Amino acid sequence: MTETRQETDTFGPIAVPADAYWGAQTQRSLQYFNIGNERLPRAMIRALGIVKLCAALANLKQKTLHKTLAAAIVDAARDVIEGGMDDHFPLVIWQTGSGTQSNMNANEVISNLANQRLGGALGARDPIHPNDHCNLGQSSNDTFPTAMHIAAVEELHHRLLPALDSLYAALSGKAKTWEGIVKIGRTHLQDATPLTLGQEFSGYAAQVRLGKDRLKDSLKRLYPLAQGGTAVGTGLNTRMGFAEAFAEEVATYTGLPFVTADNKFEALAAHDAMVETSGALNTLAVSLNKIANDIRFLGSGPRSGLGELSLPQNEPGSSIMPGKVNPTQCEAMTMVCAQVMGNHATVTIAGAQGHFELNVFKPVIAHNVLQSIGLLSDAAESLTRHCITGIEPNTRRIAELMEQSLMLVTALVPHTGYDKAASIAKEAMARGCTLREAALSSGWVTEDEFDALVKPETMTGPRD
Amino acid sequence: MTETRQETDTFGPIAVPADAYWGAQTQRSLQYFNIGNERLPRAMIRALGIVKLCAALANLKQKTLHKTLAAAIVDAARDVIEGGMDDHFPLVIWQTGSGTQSNMNANEVISNLANQRLGGALGARDPIHPNDHCNLGQSSNDTFPTAMHIAAVEELHHRLLPALDSLYAALSGKAKTWEGIVKIGRTHLQDATPLTLGQEFSGYAAQVRLGKDRLKDSLKRLYPLAQGGTAVGTGLNTRMGFAEAFAEEVATYTGLPFVTADNKFEALAAHDAMVETSGALNTLAVSLNKIANDIRFLGSGPRSGLGELSLPQNEPGSSIMPGKVNPTQCEAMTMVCAQVMGNHATVTIAGAQGHFELNVFKPVIAHNVLQSIGLLSDAAESLTRHCITGIEPNTRRIAELMEQSLMLVTALVPHTGYDKAASIAKEAMARGCTLREAALSSGWVTEDEFDALVKPETMTGPRD
Amino acid sequence: MTETRQETDTFGPIAVPADAYWGAQTQRSLQYFNIGNERLPRAMIRALGIVKLCAALANLKQKTLHKTLAAAIVDAARDVIEGGMDDHFPLVIWQTGSGTQSNMNANEVISNLANQRLGGALGARDPIHPNDHCNLGQSSNDTFPTAMHIAAVEELHHRLLPALDSLYAALSGKAKTWEGIVKIGRTHLQDATPLTLGQEFSGYAAQVRLGKDRLKDSLKRLYPLAQGGTAVGTGLNTRMGFAEAFAEEVATYTGLPFVTADNKFEALAAHDAMVETSGALNTLAVSLNKIANDIRFLGSGPRSGLGELSLPQNEPGSSIMPGKVNPTQCEAMTMVCAQVMGNHATVTIAGAQGHFELNVFKPVIAHNVLQSIGLLSDAAESLTRHCITGIEPNTRRIAELMEQSLMLVTALVPHTGYDKAASIAKEAMARGCTLREAALSSGWVTEDEFDALVKPETMTGPRD
Amino acid sequence: MTETRQETDTFGPIAVPADAYWGAQTQRSLQYFNIGNERLPRAMIRALGIVKLCAALANLKQKTLHKTLAAAIVDAARDVIEGGMDDHFPLVIWQTGSGTQSNMNANEVISNLANQRLGGALGARDPIHPNDHCNLGQSSNDTFPTAMHIAAVEELHHRLLPALDSLYAALSGKAKTWEGIVKIGRTHLQDATPLTLGQEFSGYAAQVRLGKDRLKDSLKRLYPLAQGGTAVGTGLNTRMGFAEAFAEEVATYTGLPFVTADNKFEALAAHDAMVETSGALNTLAVSLNKIANDIRFLGSGPRSGLGELSLPQNEPGSSIMPGKVNPTQCEAMTMVCAQVMGNHATVTIAGAQGHFELNVFKPVIAHNVLQSIGLLSDAAESLTRHCITGIEPNTRRIAELMEQSLMLVTALVPHTGYDKAASIAKEAMARGCTLREAALSSGWVTEDEFDALVKPETMTGPRD
Repeated sequence: MTETRQETDTFGPIAVPADAYWGAQTQRSLQYFNIGNERLPRAMIRALGIVKLCAALANLKQKTLHKTLAAAIVDAARDVIEGGMDDHFPLVIWQTGSGTQSNMNANEVISNLANQRLGGALGARDPIHPNDHCNLGQSSNDTFPTAMHIAAVEELHHRLLPALDSLYAALSGKAKTWEGIVKIGRTHLQDATPLTLGQEFSGYAAQVRLGKDRLKDSLKRLYPLAQGGTAVGTGLNTRMGFAEAFAEEVATYTGLPFVTADNKFEALAAHDAMVETSGALNTLAVSLNKIANDIRFLGSGPRSGLGELSLPQNEPGSSIMPGKVNPTQCEAMTMVCAQVMGNHATVTIAGAQGHFELNVFKPVIAHNVLQSIGLLSDAAESLTRHCITGIEPNTRRIAELMEQSLMLVTALVPHTGYDKAASIAKEAMARGCTLREAALSSGWVTEDEFDALVKPETMTGPRD
Repeated sequence: MTETRQETDTFGPIAVPADAYWGAQTQRSLQYFNIGNERLPRAMIRALGIVKLCAALANLKQKTLHKTLAAAIVDAARDVIEGGMDDHFPLVIWQTGSGTQSNMNANEVISNLANQRLGGALGARDPIHPNDHCNLGQSSNDTFPTAMHIAAVEELHHRLLPALDSLYAALSGKAKTWEGIVKIGRTHLQDATPLTLGQEFSGYAAQVRLGKDRLKDSLKRLYPLAQGGTAVGTGLNTRMGFAEAFAEEVATYTGLPFVTADNKFEALAAHDAMVETSGALNTLAVSLNKIANDIRFLGSGPRSGLGELSLPQNEPGSSIMPGKVNPTQCEAMTMVCAQVMGNHATVTIAGAQGHFELNVFKPVIAHNVLQSIGLLSDAAESLTRHCITGIEPNTRRIAELMEQSLMLVTALVPHTGYDKAASIAKEAMARGCTLREAALSSGWVTEDEFDALVKPETMTGPRD
Repeated sequence: MTETRQETDTFGPIAVPADAYWGAQTQRSLQYFNIGNERLPRAMIRALGIVKLCAALANLKQKTLHKTLAAAIVDAARDVIEGGMDDHFPLVIWQTGSGTQSNMNANEVISNLANQRLGGALGARDPIHPNDHCNLGQSSNDTFPTAMHIAAVEELHHRLLPALDSLYAALSGKAKTWEGIVKIGRTHLQDATPLTLGQEFSGYAAQVRLGKDRLKDSLKRLYPLAQGGTAVGTGLNTRMGFAEAFAEEVATYTGLPFVTADNKFEALAAHDAMVETSGALNTLAVSLNKIANDIRFLGSGPRSGLGELSLPQNEPGSSIMPGKVNPTQCEAMTMVCAQVMGNHATVTIAGAQGHFELNVFKPVIAHNVLQSIGLLSDAAESLTRHCITGIEPNTRRIAELMEQSLMLVTALVPHTGYDKAASIAKEAMARGCTLREAALSSGWVTEDEFDALVKPETMTGPRD
Repeated sequence: MTETRQETDTFGPIAVPADAYWGAQTQRSLQYFNIGNERLPRAMIRALGIVKLCAALANLKQKTLHKTLAAAIVDAARDVIEGGMDDHFPLVIWQTGSGTQSNMNANEVISNLANQRLGGALGARDPIHPNDHCNLGQSSNDTFPTAMHIAAVEELHHRLLPALDSLYAALSGKAKTWEGIVKIGRTHLQDATPLTLGQEFSGYAAQVRLGKDRLKDSLKRLYPLAQGGTAVGTGLNTRMGFAEAFAEEVATYTGLPFVTADNKFEALAAHDAMVETSGALNTLAVSLNKIANDIRFLGSGPRSGLGELSLPQNEPGSSIMPGKVNPTQCEAMTMVCAQVMGNHATVTIAGAQGHFELNVFKPVIAHNVLQSIGLLSDAAESLTRHCITGIEPNTRRIAELMEQSLMLVTALVPHTGYDKAASIAKEAMARGCTLREAALSSGWVTEDEFDALVKPETMTGPRD
């Protein structure tokens, strides 16, 4: 049996574990929402701490909060931000759709911690009251979406964009290194005209680079913050200028260009900016799925697949087939991509169902967007380090596959026209001979012409 | 610094925490897949334990495993099944797509535990070898999908179906209790002809009942197990009859009608049965979303909404608006529904991308299907207990809204025809008068006729 | 300038093209819903005709409709059913969410056609009135969902299930024919243990067979019809027994086991049965995507891919590469699968958003489910005829790929144990030698043992 | 029996309808892809015409095409662009995944039309050859994705952005007009603090404005064109500078800032820019779904709903309930939104499955993105014109609902603190009295204080 203390909120008394920094409202949520075990993510706890810290500073500036109380709140909020109080944020995602209970969780933890440091007992609600001081000039309806934007922006800046930088560097490094390796192209999975292995990887690098551009565009609509809208967007119970002062504090604290949102009604009632960001993550997942798929197919074998690439061998691949090694980094990545695409569906459905002045799917939106960012960051980092960096081309195999291809015939088209070239290729296929043999026996091309035209290494770009 | 012991697998030596029951392959996975923190769910750990236990029994029966070893494996597997070894299953979902590393995790934990009980040291791989004995006649490619089916079936049987039983009972109880309360119907959100509150709730109950039927149909394709297919579906390295013997053991152990799959190639290479089950869960989410939405709209107010129902008040609803109470159970439910729909998209995408003899999106499929089952179970239970059971009708408000409706005019149609009835309703709307007034002043209906025809309580069913 | 006639509805006069069989309400819809060009599908027009025909017969039976009028309605409805009036159903999907305007379109066309045959003019609304007779005892709210179920069931029975029968027959035919061709298995795209080409195709056949079972299960919840619920599910303005009489007429007319729905409130307010069916179609798309992908990869080449299969060559594949042939039937199929999965998302989202007594996403649900059924039917038929039937195995290539595989080492495991077998396979890979050479030089296996154990043809099933 | 002429391609002779401008390859596609009836959209036919016209001009500039031939191609292409040849583009979406058959359809129609004008017969392939001249320096693999970008950009510029401009103007017009109407806010569907009706609509206007910004950002990645990549991205069979010259011609012809893509490998093998655009459309659908839902709920009634707004009455709403009018424009819009969200899933799935040098889901991607753009354009236009513009506020009802709200208590918080304010609100609810009565009887607030603090009209913004 855990010891408890008695707390009281507007619903009356309730027993709270004696050593918990949370209070009555958090405790009620624990009792009424015994659903799943997906807790509010760390990035959101941190962001709620930033909100409380910056609100206290803005209130101090506006002289609506005494400086002793403000200092104590700031101090306690810093502990929340830095992770020291994570054990006191026990609530799951599946709670009220405004995140009110998690906002109150932050208010309760901060007020308890601050009161304790000021010499009070846990649960005293005095001198710092969770609503009247920690939540001063705020509503869950503006703090929670503000925290969502802060969390998403920080995670994008500090985790995903750097991970994509590494991945981009690795892919474009390979593109540069392999620019001289001519290989067969494949369209519709069928043999096509040649390109260099470097060109192929340059396409992957371009996908990642454009993915970063997309994320950066979506950031433009994540920087605006809902704070200052309070309950329904009007800013009731704030003083003029609070919203702007708050956003400045957040920008200063995080070093990121947050501003106050132009229209607070939109900022509470809709989470279109989060849906948009989820869309950019979805597009990135589409890109990474393609890249990971290509790499594992090009590395398939070792003896009965395409076998153009050798992927790093990190671990045994099979519990029954001894010596088997699998493209597991690609598999982890494609599973992550499938998750991100599904999360995007969740975010879309949740974003579409706001009503009137509030969208009440806030926690599930935050959870999914942040999970997608986190998974893509980790998986991109892992793929870069444990796969891309160590890939080696099997140059002999690459040359062999390229040379036997019939699609080199395309280089004859400017000379013979499409129809005759087609007939040469079909003849080579039917007779099982080389393209050269079929071309010469057709009578439409001389030996010298053939050798001058069909040079794979000159087929990897436009002619002068 | 944690103390370590040295283990060896086919990739060479590797340091493993000294007190870990897992071994080399699990350890490699921890190093190479530092992605997210979504661990293999408890239901899957339990199911892998069931697989190992039943495989040992089937091997014993087929005399391919010595009875001492079999007994030790069975004993250790029981600990895994019952949850005692959960801390030794540290791997995340984002690993190899066959779940090989989690299968090996199970093999390693069980062999270590068994060897320890037989007097050996952790990491000894003797007398019980993780591959040669714990994995005997098995491959990750058949054990993991077998565990997926066992886990999904158990969770459906022991959690979701009972939760739906409770929800169904609560809804049909209300339907019965309220069968005499006549209220306005709403179609297109607009006032329509009347029905009883009991009829309205009977529709919700029917949705839940049909949802159970759908899940039961999908169970038919979850009972067949992949075990016995080994690496590619052929059953290489098993003895004839192993698959059947195994399925019998699972049926006995779980008390559920598992059988061996007709076609093991399908069972390894596709997870259509899981996609199907996810579809049944998706349909259930669609149903529950509708029910939860209706209930919160009917309970909206308290003074400026529809206000037909009073929902239980469980906790304070606002950090800024004192005294506010919100339909939070409905919100948690609709967030869960959004998650389940998104999970279904993930499962669909993952299920569609198998290649050749193996689908390598197994862990992500298991994770999403089991999360959906768990969330729907908990949310249904929570909604039942904390919301449905305590709903009260506001009979005065219900009567008031019903009486002022113009759509009672529909009862005049058999008497006046559609066009004249429409003209009466429009007149009432335009003049702001009652339907009765407009009807009588039209001259098409006498007072007696009106009173005989327009009786809401007789409008809730066909006429004799 | 088209000539017009003037019609009138409860909103007043409106000009309708002089030769149109539709009337005022259809005309208003044309004016107010100038959105897209996706018309109500043929199967829905037919089903609305069936509804009107069967309702007239049920009304006749219940003596609520005079037999002359009933006969005229039945006669006109038959023209609608058979397709003769399709040009007079000009409305798009993007109309009122109850499909009221299309129901009225049917009422207007049938009443006009019937009146004309009885000697009246278009637009006369007499002796047969679109609402009072064609819609007698009906509401759009029950006719439209009834038509949705009829249309879906007919399309499943008459198009999709037969197309899947053909596909199943073709795939299992190949499975039988090729049961002796041993080939390399591939898991994680990597070389694995062998199986027969017949076994591989038996897995595809099993997927299709199970897909049919899923559709058949979903039919159980499509047979119940909403008809008789009228406006809100109560059956107001019907006579007792109408619903049952109607369903019997539909069963007789279609030869399919339709019944009246147990709970009409559910049947109007939710379309869970359509969402469920869409889920079964989604699972089928997942299956067919896998099958089509495998076939095009196995057929990749002709010289630099896997090349195990030769697919029929139907048309030139490239506008620039002469002689190129592509797996285009597989491509059409996978595009259809992507569409069906997206349609399923639409149906899910639409199904989840019903409110109170009516779901008002009926047309978009009907459109997507019927499009999915139609596309899968056509694509399955096309794939069967233009691809599967004509596939030929390249037995020389298949043998060559199989023989060089290292994963035949798995057959040594029962003899050497997993670890030694792994070491043999790794040695062969490192030295680029055959498995046999590496095995013999290891000293763990004799020549006789190797030859007895490593026989691909005995590796395609369990041992006795 | 239609008369035919005989055509020949590299697969041999084939009968083509005598008066068709298409040729052999189109005809083969008709025979082999009898799937569905979704034809290539008009915007794509137009875009293919633009591609052929601009390619001819670029070839002329590079002197690779004789000026007579170029002029004839340009002339014929113009007919295709302007819609005159639409009947000769009979192919469906469900064809080869590269769109090769539709590219050839364009080549065949243009060459036939040009040859005819130069005095030749249909099917002559001379002097202008479909491949050697119409497709000169091109491949389907670059023309088709180029056409996809041109079509999407034109549709966005000429249809969707203007439609959103109108919608934005209508919504912000209402926001301005209604800035003085104070009404109750609703969060969690429950009564909350007041705002003005103008503020509420300003939120909708902001959503639309931000939606336009999102689309404009996605345009940045649609302007780059694939043309010049030919078969695999290398530009084989083009002359240096062709890609740039072509893009300039397109920019000139369309008046839109098209450029050549930096990396052609990405541009052929991936359609991330289309997936991104689909994401922006998806976000817009999320916004419009919210707006349409709010409007129909605020307009619900007429007597038993919220009833704050009167929506324009456009047509009869029910076939059974006379006089009923429904929010049908909102319903059409929300159905469109559901379709767009589903289309986005299709595009995502299709975009993720490219392999090697080519994504072969091109037609299905084009179809879905263009359908989404078209539907959103039409529905936004229709909603603006037939709904938003004509909405009227029911000021009496709005005032009544606002005044009875208990959440005006929030204005007391700065005076009494949160806990006492909550107790006042709860008292008012329990006693069924007004907030004023409960406040005064609490003793915490004087009459003057109450009247000074609780003024709805001052509660719609921050205090000075």
